[in-house]
Amino acid sequence: MPHYNLALLGFGNVGRSLADLLLRKKAELKERYDITYTVTGIATGRHGSAVDPSGIDLVGALDLIRTGRTLNSVSKAQIAGPLDFIRTSQADVLFENTPVNHETGQPAVTHLRTALKCGLHAITANKGPVVHAYRELTELAKAQGKKFYFESTVMDGAPIFVLFRDAIPGTQLKSFRGVLNSTTNIILTRMEAGESFAQAVKHCQEIGIAETDPTADVDGWDAAIKVAALVTVLMGVPFTPQQVERTGIRQITPEMVAAARADGTRYKLVCSAQRECDRVQACVAPEQVSAASPMYGLEGSTSLVEFKTDVLGDLTIIEKDPGPATTAYGLLADFINAVRS
Amino acid sequence: MPHYNLALLGFGNVGRSLADLLLRKKAELKERYDITYTVTGIATGRHGSAVDPSGIDLVGALDLIRTGRTLNSVSKAQIAGPLDFIRTSQADVLFENTPVNHETGQPAVTHLRTALKCGLHAITANKGPVVHAYRELTELAKAQGKKFYFESTVMDGAPIFVLFRDAIPGTQLKSFRGVLNSTTNIILTRMEAGESFAQAVKHCQEIGIAETDPTADVDGWDAAIKVAALVTVLMGVPFTPQQVERTGIRQITPEMVAAARADGTRYKLVCSAQRECDRVQACVAPEQVSAASPMYGLEGSTSLVEFKTDVLGDLTIIEKDPGPATTAYGLLADFINAVRS
Repeated sequence: MPHYNLALLGFGNVGRSLADLLLRKKAELKERYDITYTVTGIATGRHGSAVDPSGIDLVGALDLIRTGRTLNSVSKAQIAGPLDFIRTSQADVLFENTPVNHETGQPAVTHLRTALKCGLHAITANKGPVVHAYRELTELAKAQGKKFYFESTVMDGAPIFVLFRDAIPGTQLKSFRGVLNSTTNIILTRMEAGESFAQAVKHCQEIGIAETDPTADVDGWDAAIKVAALVTVLMGVPFTPQQVERTGIRQITPEMVAAARADGTRYKLVCSAQRECDRVQACVAPEQVSAASPMYGLEGSTSLVEFKTDVLGDLTIIEKDPGPATTAYGLLADFINAVRS
Repeated sequence: MPHYNLALLGFGNVGRSLADLLLRKKAELKERYDITYTVTGIATGRHGSAVDPSGIDLVGALDLIRTGRTLNSVSKAQIAGPLDFIRTSQADVLFENTPVNHETGQPAVTHLRTALKCGLHAITANKGPVVHAYRELTELAKAQGKKFYFESTVMDGAPIFVLFRDAIPGTQLKSFRGVLNSTTNIILTRMEAGESFAQAVKHCQEIGIAETDPTADVDGWDAAIKVAALVTVLMGVPFTPQQVERTGIRQITPEMVAAARADGTRYKLVCSAQRECDRVQACVAPEQVSAASPMYGLEGSTSLVEFKTDVLGDLTIIEKDPGPATTAYGLLADFINAVRS
């Protein structure tokens, strides 16, 4: 295996968790896969950027950010924005972790396109480019002999896209159902414990998992984007979040939640899609699920997806309590699979 | 991709389901993976054998077996036992589906060793060789540039071994828990519906999933063998079924099952293993699981495993209602992955 230079574009919770993981797994990846690497570029949103083809001291960079300083002192290179960063980092792999843009996927799409054109593998935890540019980036990657991977975009580090790509080849996905948005699951769980909708939303904002405007979560947009990504990639049918029939959880009251509980059921924001030939019907909506469903036991940020294929019985994947470290692992897995395939 | 000759050693429910699947997926595998194949050998336990390097008519062979005839008329080749079958079939891939031998893994180990030595990929749904000869066969496969794959040995066609091999690289498995034996789960489910242990065992014998001597299932041996296979392969620690602490379900009474139900719990035969450095503790025993566990909802032959790794939250895989066709799919997936890797 050759040695790999890595560039980290976006250095928030996920980017820093990835840096931690790259430090922690360095010896293990060398031993198990003969993969070695150096981080040659880090670009942050508000703490400057650093490029050094001879390698950036990750521990030092993490320390600078932790103490509120910028990375500008780490290297003398003048970096004129993200595209210049990608071109000058001399990297073999780009990890794109800038904030998601649900409407256009930009500027992440441009970052990933530039990386692929420059001959880098393009890896992202950002759902935007999957929904807005999956086909283009996949074809570009193929033409360049590189990979465009995005395992962390749905269910964090749990293997979803790689499952169909590598683990269950020769299957056709007919339909899926699941709980893919953490925030709404935490809100519904807390409402079962007696909180109002507003209190539960406030809690999620306080622990940093819901935005000031909780629309993306509570109105089902985040779930719809994930559904669109799964349909687009796993069913091979280009699909937008707008095509997903979408009902959020704003109309769910504590009384409804309590009544469901008394009835032996629980409210979950359920994502689903069915394919008939080349037509797909997809939906995000609150449902009462019974104890017979594996969705019933889901607490907190735990997520689940149940796949129906042509050759297996229903196959269900559950990921318990993911966080930024889990998302970071998905990026690392994409890197390992990109370079060893 | 070159063209592959396939040999099917063992032609019971699983072998015949594999033949059906090979017929059904022929065009799709050519289109999606450029993989083409011909079955050049079929060896049955009691209905003769056929070898024809120019290709056996699978539809005809299935029909002969379905109508109780032998395969001997299909080819003129004289076949002196399984090893001669492997050597003369001119195959690139052996599918080994002879009955499992829990004590020694034989004769399947010899079949697979012979196949690998002759330059065939060796694929099996037989747990015996995994528990008794994993290291030897894996090293032999590596030396030969071939694959020894056995996805169907635990949870049928659900991706378990390939998960750690390909889908979640760079993880270390710390522990797992699950329900891996179908027969005991069906027995416990039926006891919840009011049947006695003996009645429930009889039902399983009638539908053909329990043997005349139900010891392997009800005393936890089948589960223990699967635990040993998972520990051996996924934790990298050679482990025998005898090393698994094992309690079966014979002592579970309808009263205990009813009391558990009244208590909001259900009895499941739970498999588990924990790794501490190079020491592993493994156990098969009945447990009362609550509705908070994804094991609670398991009905019938549905199986489940929950993995704890160093980098992901708990990752759970559930396979609903598998059957011979699901096991056959695991063999097909092994074939696809063996030849495209």
